[in-house]
Amino acid sequence: MQRILNNPDNIVDEMLEGFLKTHKDIVSKTDNKRVVKARKIRDNKVGVVTGGGSGHKPAFIGYVGENMCDTAAVGEICSSPTAAAFLDAFKEADQGQGVACLYGNYSGDNMNVKMAVKMAKREGITVKTVVANDDVASAPKDQLEKRRGVAGEIFMWKAGGAKAALGGTLDEVIGAAQKAIDNTRSVGIGLTPCTLPAVGHPNFQIKEGTMEVGIGHHGEPGIEVCELETAKEMAKRMVDLVAADKPFEKGDEVAVLVSGLGATPVMELYVLYDEIDQLLEKRGIVTHRSYVGNYFTSLEMMGATLTIMKLDDELKELVDLPVETMGLTQK
Amino acid sequence: MQRILNNPDNIVDEMLEGFLKTHKDIVSKTDNKRVVKARKIRDNKVGVVTGGGSGHKPAFIGYVGENMCDTAAVGEICSSPTAAAFLDAFKEADQGQGVACLYGNYSGDNMNVKMAVKMAKREGITVKTVVANDDVASAPKDQLEKRRGVAGEIFMWKAGGAKAALGGTLDEVIGAAQKAIDNTRSVGIGLTPCTLPAVGHPNFQIKEGTMEVGIGHHGEPGIEVCELETAKEMAKRMVDLVAADKPFEKGDEVAVLVSGLGATPVMELYVLYDEIDQLLEKRGIVTHRSYVGNYFTSLEMMGATLTIMKLDDELKELVDLPVETMGLTQK
Repeated sequence: MQRILNNPDNIVDEMLEGFLKTHKDIVSKTDNKRVVKARKIRDNKVGVVTGGGSGHKPAFIGYVGENMCDTAAVGEICSSPTAAAFLDAFKEADQGQGVACLYGNYSGDNMNVKMAVKMAKREGITVKTVVANDDVASAPKDQLEKRRGVAGEIFMWKAGGAKAALGGTLDEVIGAAQKAIDNTRSVGIGLTPCTLPAVGHPNFQIKEGTMEVGIGHHGEPGIEVCELETAKEMAKRMVDLVAADKPFEKGDEVAVLVSGLGATPVMELYVLYDEIDQLLEKRGIVTHRSYVGNYFTSLEMMGATLTIMKLDDELKELVDLPVETMGLTQK
Repeated sequence: MQRILNNPDNIVDEMLEGFLKTHKDIVSKTDNKRVVKARKIRDNKVGVVTGGGSGHKPAFIGYVGENMCDTAAVGEICSSPTAAAFLDAFKEADQGQGVACLYGNYSGDNMNVKMAVKMAKREGITVKTVVANDDVASAPKDQLEKRRGVAGEIFMWKAGGAKAALGGTLDEVIGAAQKAIDNTRSVGIGLTPCTLPAVGHPNFQIKEGTMEVGIGHHGEPGIEVCELETAKEMAKRMVDLVAADKPFEKGDEVAVLVSGLGATPVMELYVLYDEIDQLLEKRGIVTHRSYVGNYFTSLEMMGATLTIMKLDDELKELVDLPVETMGLTQK
């Protein structure tokens, strides 16, 4: 395992030290060392909170900052933050206007967020939640509630964070975040597995010369293992899956996000995006804004995800609002 | 080779298509498809140009944008842009105030820049150059002219680009860029090799359980192959090499940049940075600003580089100036 580590058991704490030092203009520590807080939070606004396992940089702490998330609860690698961390993240974000907790659909996160919401209620803090479920490959369309949240969470945080920054009420923030994720679909293609530092070997395999369509961020099985395709073929497969599901149709205005899974060279993500863009144009789908880079990763996995969100005037305004975080800076 | 590609021979052109579409608010095409230009360039300023081989994203095109580079010439993977591309990059950047060409010390780039400078002169464009040579591992200190340019080029572009944006003359821009690189030292540690898409297999090896200290961005041999160390030990090795060379000493104010080589998970870069920061603090070296992320990569190589620049008041002002590029956005 060719990695940059001390004791793998301490990697999350050590990573947080380095992260907080580097981005001290954007984020700051809290009393709970597994809760990160935005340095500048507008007064009197609804709190916006997220959280999740580590190993997905920039997610989750990389989306804490002005006009996006106010706090994030930090879990171990690929596992949920504790209920106590979510509760402290709520407390740090609360300004008496309530808290929107925007997170991904994983069993550990669901359980811990639910517990934390109950605990917060007892302390007089109102928390409402939106659960991201944008991964089309993780369950059929009639079982949306079973789908996982993947890179579409970034659009959910962007919309919810912007709505809160613009002075939205808790219900408006929740409404915007829910609208964002309801209008978002994603799919991933995995080319290589990843290795958890404390394990030392990959806990799943992708055979050389094949690719796994629909793979999850923790190696959750996809819908098909097939021969490795060209960028053009991968793009077609991704656009077909995502567009058919929503569906995204001629005349739709969309935001598009292509994220690497960690180790795929960024130049290849641009090659893939160029193909995706051509396919969307052919379908008459209009790209309002696009993002290409490592926005939601899985350690050193190779591969990429495609995320598309259909926009209306409200979502367009929210997506376009400037933002400053480690993972996303937009003027 | 688990990569996202069409025909490997077309990867640079296809990457550029995707890059230009994604960042159309920052960059635009020119008549030469291997030259990228900033969308907004202040009037009547000195032109700032760079260029280099592809496969190092965000370098080089990722540093084109407001207050940094005006144009970049784009080469094939790991090989220099042509003299014609450099010449066109000069022409696009020239506003009658002269052009500063800030690039890295590689034989192909040296040759092609020199030819392009001569051709530009015949067309009435004055071009002066600064050649980055920040890699301490690539030659002894008494042979600075043999050293390669690595991630320290980012500080050179930042300083030169800022000086030009602030209205500096050609000599002032060249002076600032030269001062930046003269005050900058870097070293890299490689953990895995990388594979050129058109080749299909790594053209050098790093044995599992070992690491190569001082490796170059194209697999150029380092100064030592040793057993894989902990993050703490790697940090000590990097700080010792870099600090002894300048030297960086107690009381110095510095900018620090830790870049991944492509495939190392970003969380590990923060672990490494935390160790580096502790070592600098122990030495009484004061970090004015730090950058951690994938700023100068080598396809899917694993490992990291450390770059340190000693600051004076002028360099501090130049480093702190806001910038908006794909690779570096700073408010």
